[in-house]
Amino acid sequence: MHSDREPGTPTGDHRFDVATAVRPHGDGTLYDVELDGGFANSGRPNGGYLMAVMARAVAESVGRDGADHPDPLSSSAVFLRPPEIGPASVVVEVLRTGRTASQARATLLQGDRTCVEGLYIMGRLDPGAPVVFDDQRPVHLPPESGCPPMPATRPGVVEPADPSEVTEIRLDPAVVGFASGTPSGQADIRGWVRFTDGREPDPLALLYVADVLPPATFELGSLGWVPTLELTTYVRGRPAPGPLRVRQWARLIRQGIVDERCEVWDSDDRLVAEAVQLALVHMPPPEN
Amino acid sequence: MHSDREPGTPTGDHRFDVATAVRPHGDGTLYDVELDGGFANSGRPNGGYLMAVMARAVAESVGRDGADHPDPLSSSAVFLRPPEIGPASVVVEVLRTGRTASQARATLLQGDRTCVEGLYIMGRLDPGAPVVFDDQRPVHLPPESGCPPMPATRPGVVEPADPSEVTEIRLDPAVVGFASGTPSGQADIRGWVRFTDGREPDPLALLYVADVLPPATFELGSLGWVPTLELTTYVRGRPAPGPLRVRQWARLIRQGIVDERCEVWDSDDRLVAEAVQLALVHMPPPEN
Repeated sequence: MHSDREPGTPTGDHRFDVATAVRPHGDGTLYDVELDGGFANSGRPNGGYLMAVMARAVAESVGRDGADHPDPLSSSAVFLRPPEIGPASVVVEVLRTGRTASQARATLLQGDRTCVEGLYIMGRLDPGAPVVFDDQRPVHLPPESGCPPMPATRPGVVEPADPSEVTEIRLDPAVVGFASGTPSGQADIRGWVRFTDGREPDPLALLYVADVLPPATFELGSLGWVPTLELTTYVRGRPAPGPLRVRQWARLIRQGIVDERCEVWDSDDRLVAEAVQLALVHMPPPEN
Repeated sequence: MHSDREPGTPTGDHRFDVATAVRPHGDGTLYDVELDGGFANSGRPNGGYLMAVMARAVAESVGRDGADHPDPLSSSAVFLRPPEIGPASVVVEVLRTGRTASQARATLLQGDRTCVEGLYIMGRLDPGAPVVFDDQRPVHLPPESGCPPMPATRPGVVEPADPSEVTEIRLDPAVVGFASGTPSGQADIRGWVRFTDGREPDPLALLYVADVLPPATFELGSLGWVPTLELTTYVRGRPAPGPLRVRQWARLIRQGIVDERCEVWDSDDRLVAEAVQLALVHMPPPEN
């Protein structure tokens, strides 16, 4: 159903590329960025999007230090305060450059407020590298045409921008009960994800996609948004062109905190990203 | 079989407590530590042990800033260079203190060499907090008496100290093929873990325990050690006294990199810690 789209490669003109652009400022460890409301929920930029912005600044800094390590093999961040849509800055400190990998710290600030701090391992993903061991098959989904686009509105949430203009998320119909007030009771959400403007996925985009599904706890009836405390994403391969399949599930809820796990497969059936996050969750009181 | 042991609580005199002790130095953001060879493999301190050392320094700093957040809810670190056994230092920067959680960065150095950098979310775990959602049962293991102690030597590894003096690891007999050169082919290792001196587990110890099993890839025939690149651990509960059950498994091996996942349950059948790590792995060439 997407035959009218050009199979594009990142050109720098697609919205994700513009929204993650970093402009060096000063001595080259500071970058200006402009956070795009198309990658936000309720005015709060998506955590995975912020990690992609920071990864671009890290890739620039590591490259300037002479390392050929453009890809974020690992990215882990703590979220201190949600930034607003609009101007922000990223400060990078390269911790080490090596032969196969380099490490760096990145801090996202707005004014003098630290919003996110992250640690990155950068490397170069070889698209031809064989899979030596993989113990699971990709998540099973109905075809894209059989999965409804994610509802634009969610319980208790008003969107200042329409994220579906930027990212097409088609959820497995078995897990969209939350949208009609009848959650399935399974904390396991899955769907197809692609950029609306035809931009193909790459390692940077995987940092965003690994955090783009609605919280799996929506299917348990959780209330309101689920703010991320910590998010760690491993990019395991350079994705083939085409839509991505994403599964996100919760493992344990206790003391108002949930962990969510996420896996992303490309159109060649390869696991290309995996993530874990710790988030605050507000569950309804148990019924008597 | 451990009836001769006193069910102790951490007193500060047990080896893990001494090995993670931090002494403030200078202005209170710098700590002196002494890395203990009992928590090392081949002279390289265990990554989870280093994260526990850093977490103790973070807890001190956060407490000095007035926050009642002694427990590491989340700990994620990148490993730049393995430190040697012996003196080292930890530098802490508290990023934010809050009502329910505080965040900090910790850097472990030896001389002027940065060895590990980590980000921490600190909070207070309530032992009475009910489990609101848990979709899985604890890993199934034979009783401790039916699980052999982990072999003191491993393929290609010579230990300068004997880790079994410090930590008793009893592996499920189904997953110890690697010790006799006949790996099972399942990248899934599980066993019982407790401190040999009777120290009971606590949130700090879980950071160590979540990285203490041998690499799951040993059961795939991987060669040599499996150095950690990144390790993220979430502590989900204050563990009950008694031995811990630990499962560690690999998901994907590609381009010389493996991810390992780990879960830890306490004697009350509660999931108390979960971890992911990215590590370098050397697999044997495929047979023709």
